[in-house]
Amino acid sequence: MRLSRYFLPVLKEIPAEAQIVSHRLMLRAGMIKQAQAGIYSWLPLGFKVLKKIENIVHEEQIRAGHIPMLMPTLQSADLWRESGRYDDYGEEMLRISDRHGRDMLYGPTNEELITDIFRSHVSSYKDLPLTLYHIQWKFRDEVRPRFGVMRGREFLMKDGYNFDVDKAAAMHAYNRHLVSYLRSYERMGLQAIPMRADSGPIGGDDTHEFLVLADTGESEVFYDSAVTDLTFGDRAIDYDDVAQCQGILEEFTSRYARTDETHDPALFDQIPEDRRRTARGIEVGQIFYFGTKYSEALGATVQTADGAAVPVHMGSHGIGVSRLVGAIIEASHDDKGIIWPEGVTPFHCGIVNLKQGDAEADGACEALYGSLTALGLEPLYDDRKERAGGKFATMDLIGLPWRITVGPRGLKNGVVELTSRRTGESEELTPQEAVEKVARIYGVID
Amino acid sequence: MRLSRYFLPVLKEIPAEAQIVSHRLMLRAGMIKQAQAGIYSWLPLGFKVLKKIENIVHEEQIRAGHIPMLMPTLQSADLWRESGRYDDYGEEMLRISDRHGRDMLYGPTNEELITDIFRSHVSSYKDLPLTLYHIQWKFRDEVRPRFGVMRGREFLMKDGYNFDVDKAAAMHAYNRHLVSYLRSYERMGLQAIPMRADSGPIGGDDTHEFLVLADTGESEVFYDSAVTDLTFGDRAIDYDDVAQCQGILEEFTSRYARTDETHDPALFDQIPEDRRRTARGIEVGQIFYFGTKYSEALGATVQTADGAAVPVHMGSHGIGVSRLVGAIIEASHDDKGIIWPEGVTPFHCGIVNLKQGDAEADGACEALYGSLTALGLEPLYDDRKERAGGKFATMDLIGLPWRITVGPRGLKNGVVELTSRRTGESEELTPQEAVEKVARIYGVID
Repeated sequence: MRLSRYFLPVLKEIPAEAQIVSHRLMLRAGMIKQAQAGIYSWLPLGFKVLKKIENIVHEEQIRAGHIPMLMPTLQSADLWRESGRYDDYGEEMLRISDRHGRDMLYGPTNEELITDIFRSHVSSYKDLPLTLYHIQWKFRDEVRPRFGVMRGREFLMKDGYNFDVDKAAAMHAYNRHLVSYLRSYERMGLQAIPMRADSGPIGGDDTHEFLVLADTGESEVFYDSAVTDLTFGDRAIDYDDVAQCQGILEEFTSRYARTDETHDPALFDQIPEDRRRTARGIEVGQIFYFGTKYSEALGATVQTADGAAVPVHMGSHGIGVSRLVGAIIEASHDDKGIIWPEGVTPFHCGIVNLKQGDAEADGACEALYGSLTALGLEPLYDDRKERAGGKFATMDLIGLPWRITVGPRGLKNGVVELTSRRTGESEELTPQEAVEKVARIYGVID
Repeated sequence: MRLSRYFLPVLKEIPAEAQIVSHRLMLRAGMIKQAQAGIYSWLPLGFKVLKKIENIVHEEQIRAGHIPMLMPTLQSADLWRESGRYDDYGEEMLRISDRHGRDMLYGPTNEELITDIFRSHVSSYKDLPLTLYHIQWKFRDEVRPRFGVMRGREFLMKDGYNFDVDKAAAMHAYNRHLVSYLRSYERMGLQAIPMRADSGPIGGDDTHEFLVLADTGESEVFYDSAVTDLTFGDRAIDYDDVAQCQGILEEFTSRYARTDETHDPALFDQIPEDRRRTARGIEVGQIFYFGTKYSEALGATVQTADGAAVPVHMGSHGIGVSRLVGAIIEASHDDKGIIWPEGVTPFHCGIVNLKQGDAEADGACEALYGSLTALGLEPLYDDRKERAGGKFATMDLIGLPWRITVGPRGLKNGVVELTSRRTGESEELTPQEAVEKVARIYGVID
């Protein structure tokens, strides 16, 4: 993309309403614009990051054997009356009446609707196991929406639902979700720690929240520092292997790691003192096993091998897709702006032309742009007639992990400059070497 | 995908509520499930087609230089009061009150919201031309929703908005949209004819609707048969070339083609009698130039080169993404079921194992599955223990354009059968040849 043709409305001033750094940076970098309290338009740069995160979630869910679909945003109130949650849910549920006076609601979650789909179509244990998920906009009418997309009212969430014949099978689904979530967050450049959590209005016994450590997190968290040494890495995983998935769950959840809701000071004190940590965390996902709570309320049963009709065992599993954009920025920024991890960056690298209009500089930039594009990479080329300082400030603000700087002085020696946004380190390379290095970083060449 | 692990709830009976063939087939093929009147869940097979259509629209819009973003589903009533449409829009607008009693609405279209974004960030002609678009769920509270996803209440639409300094520039944007739409529909296997149309509640002078001819279309259309001879094909297009885009507009719109709303019998009678056609059509898109209607109401002005402040010239341009799923089926089916065009098929081909459990047949199917997948294709392998007739009926119903049939008898002679869903023609090929033929059809090998 050439910046002269893009829509990147960066702001010079720090917006007064934004209290936390991710909200400030998303506004300044032209990623979002508030439409109403807690409701945002995703401007082109923000939309690109949102899609990258969504794609990672899709890829990892499909890899785990979970099946994508899409439920609507608006749901029937009657279904929520069946489960008993219509009255329970409180004022966070946005209630709507249509032109015929029928009660609807903007879905805050989808346990009822997915269970209705299941009970309409599945009646035999032979069709299990089954995990369906979707990535769809939800609405929760927060009384005081704030922190930008971190606590918005209209938000994008992945929510998945497993249907299994018994608790053991459902716990394997639970473990598959834990593993796929660990992989997903790592691909986004995040360390998200699974912590024992409280089930809240979803219900159920087993639940873990995934928390990203950040000073601005809304939850206080307590953990054994040994948990932050764990990484999933590129280990091979067979999602049908019950023991392997269970082993990963144990590896990542056997150390103490809890939010304030489930914190147990006595247990915490048993950790060696030098490993006890208190910090703040941002919740970016949660998995639940809740057994037959919804299947019993809504009559979702299957026939087992011996002919008995049993309610299916279920769980639900969510990733806050739009919230993650803010969470990643909270975890990865500096005074100059955002620092995108490579996995979610909106453009793979920036190209800064120090002397727009100079035939040689323009030509070198166009050649770089063409080479990177031909490799399947997406560069953002700042081809505006602006001074170098302004171009650098914009690139730093929007946080592309790599920048290639092209100027007449370097070109005289046959070199351009490749700079890491994270470390600030630069090296002089031929244009060809710079392209190859960037391509190698993103794994498009060996 | 192995069918034993998929969620494909095909129905045996013809659902009573479905009046048109696409609605019946989408229910029978397990593509959708109604959640409420005019509101559908997209089951896995339907979701895959929806995504394919969405991807084509994204690719062609980006190719035309239009910039993707995303606006929220819920909008502020105040913005619609500014434009004067809040009261005008009538009962089709779903009006909502939040917990604080603030008036909102579920967006039926986005002229107001995009103009608000524009006026907040753009003030100079130097930032033009600019076309922003999004693909987002909309809601129109139809009094009698029917025909499945063809006239739903919650529906997925691509809507794009151009901002230009004067009418001439805006008409080039109009032409770019016409060209990109022609390309998009052809990639979906559709012939969509641009017809002079009525602007309705959007307003404006210049507008064309794109109609797909089908017996179940809601509009009566009148045209010169010469228009159906036109195809866009794979001609090269430079979207910056004003004359080229204008030429394509003229080529595709100079013959008579109108809906009943704008039909002019006197003009129609001037067409040679043997080329006069009356038919029914399904509207799958519309483009509008409406000048300064919204920019004046909302104060969206830019400063021109000579320092004057002028309201921007705008247009809006829509493609009915969810409706297209139905429209494609209306245009492409037979007694046995759907016939997907290659461009939008949910799976590239089916693999039918005639003797599940037979070691040789199972092995050959697995090998085919592996080879196709390695080429980046997505086969659907019917690995269920069902009789052959049932497997064929399912494949015919869900409409994959190509089917590879594997059985012990053929394997003895080293062959499998490749069958075209459209023609019903089969040929015997070695497994290797079958894979190569399918790969060539989809352009993944030469």
